[in-house]
Amino acid sequence: MNIAVYPGSFDPVTYGHLDIIERASSIFDKLIVAVLENSAKKPLFTVEERKDMIKAATMSLRNVEVDYFSGLLVDYMKQNDYHIVIKGLRMLSDFEYEFQMALMNKKLNDDIETLFMMTNSKYAYLSSSIVKEIAKFNGDISELVPEYIALRLKEKLRGK
Amino acid sequence: MNIAVYPGSFDPVTYGHLDIIERASSIFDKLIVAVLENSAKKPLFTVEERKDMIKAATMSLRNVEVDYFSGLLVDYMKQNDYHIVIKGLRMLSDFEYEFQMALMNKKLNDDIETLFMMTNSKYAYLSSSIVKEIAKFNGDISELVPEYIALRLKEKLRGK
Amino acid sequence: MNIAVYPGSFDPVTYGHLDIIERASSIFDKLIVAVLENSAKKPLFTVEERKDMIKAATMSLRNVEVDYFSGLLVDYMKQNDYHIVIKGLRMLSDFEYEFQMALMNKKLNDDIETLFMMTNSKYAYLSSSIVKEIAKFNGDISELVPEYIALRLKEKLRGK
Amino acid sequence: MNIAVYPGSFDPVTYGHLDIIERASSIFDKLIVAVLENSAKKPLFTVEERKDMIKAATMSLRNVEVDYFSGLLVDYMKQNDYHIVIKGLRMLSDFEYEFQMALMNKKLNDDIETLFMMTNSKYAYLSSSIVKEIAKFNGDISELVPEYIALRLKEKLRGK
Amino acid sequence: MNIAVYPGSFDPVTYGHLDIIERASSIFDKLIVAVLENSAKKPLFTVEERKDMIKAATMSLRNVEVDYFSGLLVDYMKQNDYHIVIKGLRMLSDFEYEFQMALMNKKLNDDIETLFMMTNSKYAYLSSSIVKEIAKFNGDISELVPEYIALRLKEKLRGK
Amino acid sequence: MNIAVYPGSFDPVTYGHLDIIERASSIFDKLIVAVLENSAKKPLFTVEERKDMIKAATMSLRNVEVDYFSGLLVDYMKQNDYHIVIKGLRMLSDFEYEFQMALMNKKLNDDIETLFMMTNSKYAYLSSSIVKEIAKFNGDISELVPEYIALRLKEKLRGK
Repeated sequence: MNIAVYPGSFDPVTYGHLDIIERASSIFDKLIVAVLENSAKKPLFTVEERKDMIKAATMSLRNVEVDYFSGLLVDYMKQNDYHIVIKGLRMLSDFEYEFQMALMNKKLNDDIETLFMMTNSKYAYLSSSIVKEIAKFNGDISELVPEYIALRLKEKLRGK
Repeated sequence: MNIAVYPGSFDPVTYGHLDIIERASSIFDKLIVAVLENSAKKPLFTVEERKDMIKAATMSLRNVEVDYFSGLLVDYMKQNDYHIVIKGLRMLSDFEYEFQMALMNKKLNDDIETLFMMTNSKYAYLSSSIVKEIAKFNGDISELVPEYIALRLKEKLRGK
Repeated sequence: MNIAVYPGSFDPVTYGHLDIIERASSIFDKLIVAVLENSAKKPLFTVEERKDMIKAATMSLRNVEVDYFSGLLVDYMKQNDYHIVIKGLRMLSDFEYEFQMALMNKKLNDDIETLFMMTNSKYAYLSSSIVKEIAKFNGDISELVPEYIALRLKEKLRGK
Repeated sequence: MNIAVYPGSFDPVTYGHLDIIERASSIFDKLIVAVLENSAKKPLFTVEERKDMIKAATMSLRNVEVDYFSGLLVDYMKQNDYHIVIKGLRMLSDFEYEFQMALMNKKLNDDIETLFMMTNSKYAYLSSSIVKEIAKFNGDISELVPEYIALRLKEKLRGK
Repeated sequence: MNIAVYPGSFDPVTYGHLDIIERASSIFDKLIVAVLENSAKKPLFTVEERKDMIKAATMSLRNVEVDYFSGLLVDYMKQNDYHIVIKGLRMLSDFEYEFQMALMNKKLNDDIETLFMMTNSKYAYLSSSIVKEIAKFNGDISELVPEYIALRLKEKLRGK
Repeated sequence: MNIAVYPGSFDPVTYGHLDIIERASSIFDKLIVAVLENSAKKPLFTVEERKDMIKAATMSLRNVEVDYFSGLLVDYMKQNDYHIVIKGLRMLSDFEYEFQMALMNKKLNDDIETLFMMTNSKYAYLSSSIVKEIAKFNGDISELVPEYIALRLKEKLRGK
């Protein structure tokens, strides 16, 4: 069985991520969306909240599972005997960072292959940070994240 | 009347910004230099100080006005019925960030057009951060900012 | 009166170009679409044919005029007392070439200002060459150029 | 069954291509290496010769097949009911061109997904053109292409 | 005598840096590795520790000296009558930042020339930050830094 | 003695090249400007003419010699026991091509080191092709090449 892992912070998941998830899930037998628990980056949502939001948004995709990991991606891959990483590319800066990560991960574990998919050009501008920035100033994010995520984001920002 | 808005942090304004201001003011009927009040970025100068310095440096340009905004640029544009944003491009990284911002702003408000001007290649190296870094170590900034700004910068850094 | 010139080969004009033309014409009092007569590049369509197709596609835009030039853009600008050039930017390679051209034109004539607009991300993939390549193999170009241009392109390619 | 298509000119196939072929063939059930018959580009080797060389170099990989196509990749994919394209990325310029192609192909046929793999950094400098350039001046190409390909290349260049 | 200065944070020195040091020391009569004392960046190792590690790793290179500086590189160069800066380039983002720095340094002192060397593509993925990130999670760094540095890094991270 | 080689087409030499030649000649004991005889590229000037123009323009620099080579740069370096190549970098596209060439040359001969210098930002727009393009249309090239080169270029273009 062909299993691919799509790692990320997903703080929160956007339509850009969901575009990759949907397309990748149609290529591989199973797709694991793996939320990185990175305390250093001070995410807005907890790992549990981020997992819940991804689950809600991918409910209709039967072969998508949501998991989390901390530490190095290569260790997570090895422990679960996963070999394929999926990453979305938007623009140049993505490319460079992802290039470095892919080379590094291959160096740390030669059994890991990273496959890249181009994000739909419709979402070329989209990132979790931008969504949070706009939400902070009550801007309209209805075309950037699903309605449920928009609600959770507003709640979270109001609660601060 | 053709009105353009040139937004930025201007902490402080440099000869690179002034080059854009001068050239843009000769194209449009009015140019609004809009200082972003961004408390998260911890600017060295207050909004008032930054506005004063831009006013002093653009005194000879009759159709230049200095204003400020907080929050989203698109909201500021809408409230004032402005439609044209001017941005200066220096190098690649500028381009990517500005590309993302322009797409996002167009998404948030389709009535906004962003026009880009190339910064004079003489100032390709120049940014407010570099000016502050050099001033901090008493380096020579006389070709980077007008004399008055250089004085204000030295005062401010000494006062800290 | 604010007049801007949008120069290019337009061999043939695409929805990407038309997006820039429409948006630029709403900013400036008049927009001149200036077709470059470049015999060295061996265009598929003659200058007259290219002008006709642009005229047909921009008929509804009252302040758009179609013209042509040969030789250097700066000479054309000077002879007509035009000062503003509009260019569309799609991706990185565009940026670099256009950056070089803008610097060169400014060097040759300091009175010329080049303003850049981001092409709609929907058309990030689109160029006249790609349209011709697809048309050559009878691919579907109905979302790449207006119907009239598609017809002219098919005629032209069949006639060869 | 998961089938991926790796299209290219392969004029001739290099260790850079073979690295991608080997790694892609370990991910997918079947990998079709599809040689583009592009008479406009005036290849050094005929399609048959290029296919032969790839077959010789991939003999040990059971799930690799070699095919050819002319015209548009999307048409070839459709006729054979293939849905996944594999492309190798080396450096920035690759990225931009491939980005444009992937977007265009997706536009022409929404059922096609392009997946990208990073070429091993060992081969970052390697292209078919560079191999031909070095071979032309009798430079050492033994670390750039398999021995059999090197022989065929020398024969071909001598025969000219 | 031709003296070159290789400035950096070296927190800690990696095989990527050592590749540049070795190659640059074979070109110039003397190479000064100049450790930047930058308290703002909160380095993991003190200047003394970073100098010690570089000394240990370059012991066999007779014309390499290790020094440190704080403040502006141009001031350090001037005080010691040095004129040549060596920088390693890995990827695009390096290039842009280094380009800006080289232009700025030339502006501040026209007697300074910056020469760039390409980092071996084997180390394209390597940076001090990545080494620290991997070491933090007990990943294998034996091919990224010399054994002695790996030990010092583990000690330091454990002591925290 | 430290000898560096600055290879190129120099068809014709521009102020951008001369900026690199002057600065490189102040760093190395001897600088060889090596004109590439590349018949495939159909240069405007013969190798002898290009050499003459460089000699005329570098007369005041005592440690600059002008030579030519055909075939591979690495072979020319080896035959003359040269080890250091100097290249000028202007913008991103330069960087990528030069990166590939430097890696390839290092691969073909490990004794060769390529050092890069940033072209003065004043000449960021400048290339031999652009100079020829402007001269063809009688544009002003007096700030792009020395007077003697401008004359030779006009003669050559008239004679065609």
